[in-house]
Amino acid sequence: MGKAKKTAREILKDWGVAEFHVIDKRAISEITLGASILATGGGGDPEIGLLWTYKVLDEGKEILMVDPMAVPDEVQTASTACLGAAIVLTEKPPSGGVLNLALSRLERYLGRPIGATIPIECGGVNSPVAYAAAGERGIPVIDVDGMNRAFPELQMTSWVTHGVHASPTVSVDDRENVTVIDTGADDVLAETLARRAAMAYGGISWVATYPLSGEEMKRTSILNSQSIAWAVGRAVMRARVEHLDPIEELLKSLRKERDVEGFRVFSGKIIDIHRDFGSETNKGFTLGTVTMEGIGADKGRTASLDFQNEWLNLRVDGEILCLPPDLIAILDTETGEPIRTDIMKYGYRGTIVLIPAHERMRTPKGIDLFGPRHFGYDLDYVPVEDLNASRR
Amino acid sequence: MGKAKKTAREILKDWGVAEFHVIDKRAISEITLGASILATGGGGDPEIGLLWTYKVLDEGKEILMVDPMAVPDEVQTASTACLGAAIVLTEKPPSGGVLNLALSRLERYLGRPIGATIPIECGGVNSPVAYAAAGERGIPVIDVDGMNRAFPELQMTSWVTHGVHASPTVSVDDRENVTVIDTGADDVLAETLARRAAMAYGGISWVATYPLSGEEMKRTSILNSQSIAWAVGRAVMRARVEHLDPIEELLKSLRKERDVEGFRVFSGKIIDIHRDFGSETNKGFTLGTVTMEGIGADKGRTASLDFQNEWLNLRVDGEILCLPPDLIAILDTETGEPIRTDIMKYGYRGTIVLIPAHERMRTPKGIDLFGPRHFGYDLDYVPVEDLNASRR
Repeated sequence: MGKAKKTAREILKDWGVAEFHVIDKRAISEITLGASILATGGGGDPEIGLLWTYKVLDEGKEILMVDPMAVPDEVQTASTACLGAAIVLTEKPPSGGVLNLALSRLERYLGRPIGATIPIECGGVNSPVAYAAAGERGIPVIDVDGMNRAFPELQMTSWVTHGVHASPTVSVDDRENVTVIDTGADDVLAETLARRAAMAYGGISWVATYPLSGEEMKRTSILNSQSIAWAVGRAVMRARVEHLDPIEELLKSLRKERDVEGFRVFSGKIIDIHRDFGSETNKGFTLGTVTMEGIGADKGRTASLDFQNEWLNLRVDGEILCLPPDLIAILDTETGEPIRTDIMKYGYRGTIVLIPAHERMRTPKGIDLFGPRHFGYDLDYVPVEDLNASRR
Repeated sequence: MGKAKKTAREILKDWGVAEFHVIDKRAISEITLGASILATGGGGDPEIGLLWTYKVLDEGKEILMVDPMAVPDEVQTASTACLGAAIVLTEKPPSGGVLNLALSRLERYLGRPIGATIPIECGGVNSPVAYAAAGERGIPVIDVDGMNRAFPELQMTSWVTHGVHASPTVSVDDRENVTVIDTGADDVLAETLARRAAMAYGGISWVATYPLSGEEMKRTSILNSQSIAWAVGRAVMRARVEHLDPIEELLKSLRKERDVEGFRVFSGKIIDIHRDFGSETNKGFTLGTVTMEGIGADKGRTASLDFQNEWLNLRVDGEILCLPPDLIAILDTETGEPIRTDIMKYGYRGTIVLIPAHERMRTPKGIDLFGPRHFGYDLDYVPVEDLNASRR
């Protein structure tokens, strides 16, 4: 690391990789839109992550995305992310250097350089931020993530369910405070420590986490998660331009890219929001329940959703239609723009779409770690396609 | 650090130091008794730290204490300590390797070896533990500390008041979980993060902290703090053997070793203890208030003391007689054994002794950081010798 740093393009050449995506502003805006739809109501404000990524591109830095299977086994990868309550972030935008600092300190603690970033989740902030961090550092971003949705806690990843760990994790803030968390296989403790650090920093932290080898990354990630988000975002953007139904185009893109069927289950408007305000500062999450009253064909029906940063479950007229880890999106019917837990307001109208979680999130260990019982519901997990079989 | 490690004796030889104390079981038991008297009601159970130190000596390891002025400027020193609620420690004794792990990880983060330990405070646990850690690691312990008393928070040291900092601090637990805290000059944030880590670990943590150069250590520490504790402990032990008044002997030893006057202000028995039990798990401290009813010459008078791990202040019949950072000890009148906040019970009898804090703790910055207002009292600091001038 003493010599002149290689560029992302030179790193890919060293790996013998000839094919990769050059991520421009249009690409990142499509990926970010798709990621925020898949973010299940969480993941934060896409504007923040996008502005950051645009700035990196405007400085002439290149952002390259590569297929996971092209990454050598021995390459050190790591994830970069914002960890904290999304609502705080809106009032406290990040400075550019935070993830660079986190990656540098992780390299120092590991004693080896990080060759590529892996996005942690699909989210309005953490998806573009993974690209921005890669661009700033001059390393490629890999077409994977650890969730193919957003989730509120650090350990809720396909990485943990497949036996690799978040430690060591480096957590920093924009005043260059640094906390290195190294809890071995105890990922729940890593989450607890990272959450407490974020709270001590004032609500928001920036982490470099999940230092995985190329081999581990390929064995445990949601492969081509970025391509899935990109396909979703591209479909919805095209629908806007061509005046098509964005939700129909979204469902088509999922069929094509993932070979899964999503469900359009409810249209309505928000008539009640119960927020647990204490939670924002005490636990580092945005918590509460929202109620929607049906409109159009759903007139007279009532939908209710609990959230912890992300939507957790959906009940319509008391019937459970979706349980974690399956995905819930409330989308603006005209634009396909997601309505997030941190910005929703009384009167917002939207269509609820349910999407099966990726199979790497549905293993028995996954259901243990982020299924209904983890979130305090006395319910067994039932896949969304079974709960909605009649809608097929 | 790849070659065979030097012994403490070889390290002292390298420094050109010919004079040092060899700490045997008697020495460490005297130092620990003195330290627990100076610990102001806190500092934890001396049995735990002593047993650990005895074990190190029984394994044939040598513990050497050296005068601070003999330490070269460029030597890297660091403090080792237990951080958490003392009452938890009683139920969860440490394994020997925790401070070795903390020191190793601090060396790794700093990128250089630690040549000597500096005790952080006078306390039943942290005084002997500094010796045990030094003995286990084969490095000398320096005749200083950062308080010459105990205090509840990491930043409440002469080190901080003289411009050096706790960061980086490494916090570990006995399952080898590691948290590195690097907050630059923000020592209060380091304390917050370290306290939260201890709570996440289950109440107790082991830290390697205050990595000071030899030059910084000499400029900012309470010099010869260990010798002061040793003199106090030796005096009280001698009083026990020779059937002298231990409190009189203690006061004499302070005159001789520190040239300060302590005050014997109250004899009584505990008639009420109000503990804030929630605090143990919520904040990591033992908090509350204790009331004593006078006996003998003090019959009819009432003493009241607030505590946060340590005694904070003393009021007798409503009159303030001692404010932080001055020292309060409640001592068994027969044995001179201190009555601690974590073990006191209804009916315990004792004599209250007040001792002026070390001058390096009484600077304006010191009064800001750990004077009455820091602990929530709307009172200016008045030195204990002024509050008790009539007792001279």
